[in-house]
Amino acid sequence: MTSPTTGRATRTPRRSPAAPADAGRLSPAGVAKEPGTARIAVDLLGGDDAPAVVVDGALRAMRADPDLHLLLVGPTKVAGELIDALDPAQRNRVTVRPAHTAVDMADDPTAARAESTVRAAAAAVRAGQADALVSAGSTGATVTAAALGLGRWPEVRRPALAAALPALSGPVVLLDVGGSLEPGPATLARHAVLGAAYAAVAHGLAAPRVGLLSVGTEPGKGDRARRLADPVLSTVALPAGARYVGLVEGYDVCLGTRADVVVTDGFTGNVLLKAVEGAYAMAGGPPPGGEAPRAAALLGVAGTVVVCHGAAQPDDIASGIALAARLWRRNATDRVAALLAGDRTDRTTDTEVRTS
Amino acid sequence: MTSPTTGRATRTPRRSPAAPADAGRLSPAGVAKEPGTARIAVDLLGGDDAPAVVVDGALRAMRADPDLHLLLVGPTKVAGELIDALDPAQRNRVTVRPAHTAVDMADDPTAARAESTVRAAAAAVRAGQADALVSAGSTGATVTAAALGLGRWPEVRRPALAAALPALSGPVVLLDVGGSLEPGPATLARHAVLGAAYAAVAHGLAAPRVGLLSVGTEPGKGDRARRLADPVLSTVALPAGARYVGLVEGYDVCLGTRADVVVTDGFTGNVLLKAVEGAYAMAGGPPPGGEAPRAAALLGVAGTVVVCHGAAQPDDIASGIALAARLWRRNATDRVAALLAGDRTDRTTDTEVRTS
Repeated sequence: MTSPTTGRATRTPRRSPAAPADAGRLSPAGVAKEPGTARIAVDLLGGDDAPAVVVDGALRAMRADPDLHLLLVGPTKVAGELIDALDPAQRNRVTVRPAHTAVDMADDPTAARAESTVRAAAAAVRAGQADALVSAGSTGATVTAAALGLGRWPEVRRPALAAALPALSGPVVLLDVGGSLEPGPATLARHAVLGAAYAAVAHGLAAPRVGLLSVGTEPGKGDRARRLADPVLSTVALPAGARYVGLVEGYDVCLGTRADVVVTDGFTGNVLLKAVEGAYAMAGGPPPGGEAPRAAALLGVAGTVVVCHGAAQPDDIASGIALAARLWRRNATDRVAALLAGDRTDRTTDTEVRTS
Repeated sequence: MTSPTTGRATRTPRRSPAAPADAGRLSPAGVAKEPGTARIAVDLLGGDDAPAVVVDGALRAMRADPDLHLLLVGPTKVAGELIDALDPAQRNRVTVRPAHTAVDMADDPTAARAESTVRAAAAAVRAGQADALVSAGSTGATVTAAALGLGRWPEVRRPALAAALPALSGPVVLLDVGGSLEPGPATLARHAVLGAAYAAVAHGLAAPRVGLLSVGTEPGKGDRARRLADPVLSTVALPAGARYVGLVEGYDVCLGTRADVVVTDGFTGNVLLKAVEGAYAMAGGPPPGGEAPRAAALLGVAGTVVVCHGAAQPDDIASGIALAARLWRRNATDRVAALLAGDRTDRTTDTEVRTS
């Protein structure tokens, strides 16, 4: 098989709890790791209310998950405060990577300095010192840091942030929620592929239905971006037995009656996700049995990356860390990559997507 | 003063219950009308489940409001069924304007035939046979019918659909929710003006705060459309003491903590509105004291027009009819127009907006 990460031939998937094979790039041989252990790199300086909110959230995550280890990336003073707050017996679950530069929300993400906390966290994942990265900092800076530090998968020009929203019969995967604000039709088609594979792997959805978000369901409804993308999505080969169901509406993101995966541009997805979160906050919480989407997984980079909102509160940070740990334990990134590799062999629209 | 409707000098605002002055174009002299009476033209063939759902909704609206009169625009057979379902004493509150052609959701709205129900309903409002128009048909067709049949206000190239969402301290006016899918910066600026005036008139909001929906609040956040629009909105003069507060996020649409009026393109507004409705449906209803947004007011045309979703249910239709009646009784359209006329005299950015 061909490695979806490097494009080069490789014999086995990278190591992970669910596929504890030989050494891979993200988890080099020699790093001792218990089954079930997840080592999450946390960007202490990411978020509007960092570091206080991040420290609080990290403590909550530690207390909720005894197999969770954290690599705190940020000022040693801040990391020290977190460690001091832990029971002494638990302190061996925390390590620190000093870094002192935050990426400000107003900074140009592509100019994010190499010594920033989020770049250092991505480097730690790359070096196998952590299994996944969580940041509530600038989305653009995190996407850039992940793409530069971990590498993008083949044919992924722009990684997508995927959020899972509670719906009537299981979650709906919404993507992109902020990774790529103005994607072209080929990027939306690639995101459909990523979203279908992620829904199958992370949420166990068999043969997910994939829809394109628009203002009506009849063909031709929508703005120019949607009218261009709809025919491209209708011809793209989807992994995991997924099928494209055409245009869907805002209701479908919350109800899930028409689609399990909803594809949209990152601008629309971001404002929609935050509006839905606001609506659930207004209504006194998410629906019974559902969970508010508090963090999003970054798809299309060669590693497990979770992004929290800049306005994240401690529970949101803890939820993001828990999501990263869950994805790592399910070996989600490798399994999505494997589905995409199979997809790449099968489908016939390669050229169209590649030349986006 | 200058009439905002015609651009010509006129002595008085048009007649309405709240300003029962002399005859205006929408309510010509000679049409007897009791104070409080609202005569709503209902498009019987508009909506995915028309006419059954529209008939049911119209009946509910009639029963809830004894001063409501309906002009049923559609096939006489369908209108007859509605009339038969009414108590005989109430039948004098209903009149019929026969029309037999529906605008299909898949039709090009600009090609909407002149004999369609929604065009006939707009003509009835224009002729003073009704005070307002309600349709759950194709939004594009309704906007086109209203613009052609009633005329647009000066400087309004594209009318805006405004929805009111429940928020922590009163409603948030979201616009556009589907009237103009890809507006330029000048149209967004005009919609900010319309939204501010509408919030002041329809919801009694003093000095409303107006925000531009984006993915973050820092200047420069967002896609190209937002980066272009933000500086334009920051210089436009707003009516009713309103002020522009800059970029706001999805949360703000539901919580209302940062803005009372949220401006966005019709694509984003439409999918966001439907997603929020879906979230409230999932959560078991809107927040206590709030009302789900079931219909939207069309701003920028010389008449009172309310648009319901194509997927509207009977209660949604009844709610749309009630909104139209409320707006008419509050003289909202004329009062918004008057605010805009004052605004046009005062502000200094006329040229920039006019040449959009």
